[in-house]
Amino acid sequence: MSVLVVGTVAFDAIETPFGKTDKIIGGSGTYIALTASYFTKSVNLVGVVGEDFLQSDIANFQQHGINTKGLQVKEGEKSFFWAGRYHNDLNTRDTLATDLNVLADFDPIIPEAYQDCKYLMLGNLTPEVQQTVLNRLNQRPELVMLDTMNFWMNEPFLPSLKEVIKQVDVLSINDEEARMLSGEYSLVKAAKSILAMGPTYLIIKKGEHGALLFNNDQIFFAPALPLEEVFDPTGAGDTFAGGFLGHLAQTQDHSFNNMKRAVIYGSAMASFCVEKFGPERLMNLSADTLEERVQEFVDLVQFEIDYA
Amino acid sequence: MSVLVVGTVAFDAIETPFGKTDKIIGGSGTYIALTASYFTKSVNLVGVVGEDFLQSDIANFQQHGINTKGLQVKEGEKSFFWAGRYHNDLNTRDTLATDLNVLADFDPIIPEAYQDCKYLMLGNLTPEVQQTVLNRLNQRPELVMLDTMNFWMNEPFLPSLKEVIKQVDVLSINDEEARMLSGEYSLVKAAKSILAMGPTYLIIKKGEHGALLFNNDQIFFAPALPLEEVFDPTGAGDTFAGGFLGHLAQTQDHSFNNMKRAVIYGSAMASFCVEKFGPERLMNLSADTLEERVQEFVDLVQFEIDYA
Repeated sequence: MSVLVVGTVAFDAIETPFGKTDKIIGGSGTYIALTASYFTKSVNLVGVVGEDFLQSDIANFQQHGINTKGLQVKEGEKSFFWAGRYHNDLNTRDTLATDLNVLADFDPIIPEAYQDCKYLMLGNLTPEVQQTVLNRLNQRPELVMLDTMNFWMNEPFLPSLKEVIKQVDVLSINDEEARMLSGEYSLVKAAKSILAMGPTYLIIKKGEHGALLFNNDQIFFAPALPLEEVFDPTGAGDTFAGGFLGHLAQTQDHSFNNMKRAVIYGSAMASFCVEKFGPERLMNLSADTLEERVQEFVDLVQFEIDYA
Repeated sequence: MSVLVVGTVAFDAIETPFGKTDKIIGGSGTYIALTASYFTKSVNLVGVVGEDFLQSDIANFQQHGINTKGLQVKEGEKSFFWAGRYHNDLNTRDTLATDLNVLADFDPIIPEAYQDCKYLMLGNLTPEVQQTVLNRLNQRPELVMLDTMNFWMNEPFLPSLKEVIKQVDVLSINDEEARMLSGEYSLVKAAKSILAMGPTYLIIKKGEHGALLFNNDQIFFAPALPLEEVFDPTGAGDTFAGGFLGHLAQTQDHSFNNMKRAVIYGSAMASFCVEKFGPERLMNLSADTLEERVQEFVDLVQFEIDYA
């Protein structure tokens, strides 16, 4: 089933304890769309890049079956650029550069051909842009998921973030952001508070410590796969979101049991993402490789209890 | 099946963001023995207390079916005392006082009636005392589990810790300690390194982030139960160990599948422990309450994947 992905398409320069990259493709829209393309062949991307963006990267989207009609290319302008350096624990990082460039006045134009999308993924962007996308759709998609970050939880952005959060089905944020948005330290209390703000489902991403899915009084937890080496965590959260929404779009089943599976698929895709720099590991995964990885999650957490 | 528990039996004074206690009963041996008593009715305790220890606390052990013949009471001396204050996140704490008292020259005497114990749990103590216990047993128990802490991973204790670790079946430590003992940041690499030191199974406790069980190339993960409020984390790791070993002693099944269940029972018991100060919540749990808690773990992590 068709998915509309709105997010940043950008250049990143990444330093980790294991090495550094020149400008490579990045951005929330990139990770989400690439990942979702493994689950459904109707992924439609809305974003903006500058004239410095590579035709080969656009061709790569298309080779993954991603519709790039909604990817605006601004002549005479430069693509959004982020540079960051991860600390030794890979859980914290310093931002070295954030050049908004084309993102500064991004107007998310929805091509007519995207109007019938049933699933909408609003990747991390200003809440205003996320709201504009919702406003420009002729009818509300069957399921709307939104990812955001701590930066928008400050003034003057917080009111518009809260307004758009009200309108979504699934909100995904990390543990620090959940605490910031709710003012609660306990994630269980934070989740109750955030679900009362509007979303039906809340995903709290805990990085190497896994992810929690909340809905009313139901909670599901999936660990991150214990890896020998996390090479580069950039994009792991967006990759998770792409796998989660991709699985829902593929199966069109919005039950809590199927959302559990979606969390596992999202976690499996994220476990690939961190194995190489940027989205490199997401470029060419076979169905068998994905299935094996999901089986590793089954082996990692499944147990049987016989009540004596 | 009979379990021998060796550990500290002590007084703790605890401060958390939610309140503070006077001197209450604590110590690794206390948490382990109380918890194991829910799984097997033959728990035998070895430890030492001073004349300040309360008869009512000893009676309480006995009411849980715990044999206290091996609990030495030193006239004219004081019990081991620890005082600590937890920070707001409850993950870090300051030690305010450590008075070794009777623990300074603890000689672990094994009553003859304990000699046939099939399961041995060496709670956190000096590696020398742990080694002495092993030396004093006429025959090696069927399964030996050891818990220790970062303090013993420094000179001059490290060589004797490594020597005793060689001889155990199951080692349980936390994530920080696993990194310290192995010199590896990645827990997967740390586990490989530590398993090469001798133990067949390694449990890495991650506090609120759950616990990992390693054996050769097998890994099992269990989350901590997401709680609205963690009231006092004191003793949670020992409680986990008591539930883990208790389940193995109850079932006498040392397969990896049964160890997975043991991790779940340990995690369930630990989730009770943190709900009140000290071991209070472990004093009177019904079988139904425990079964319901285990079911919460099932609901939290179980999922079904159908490969299309």
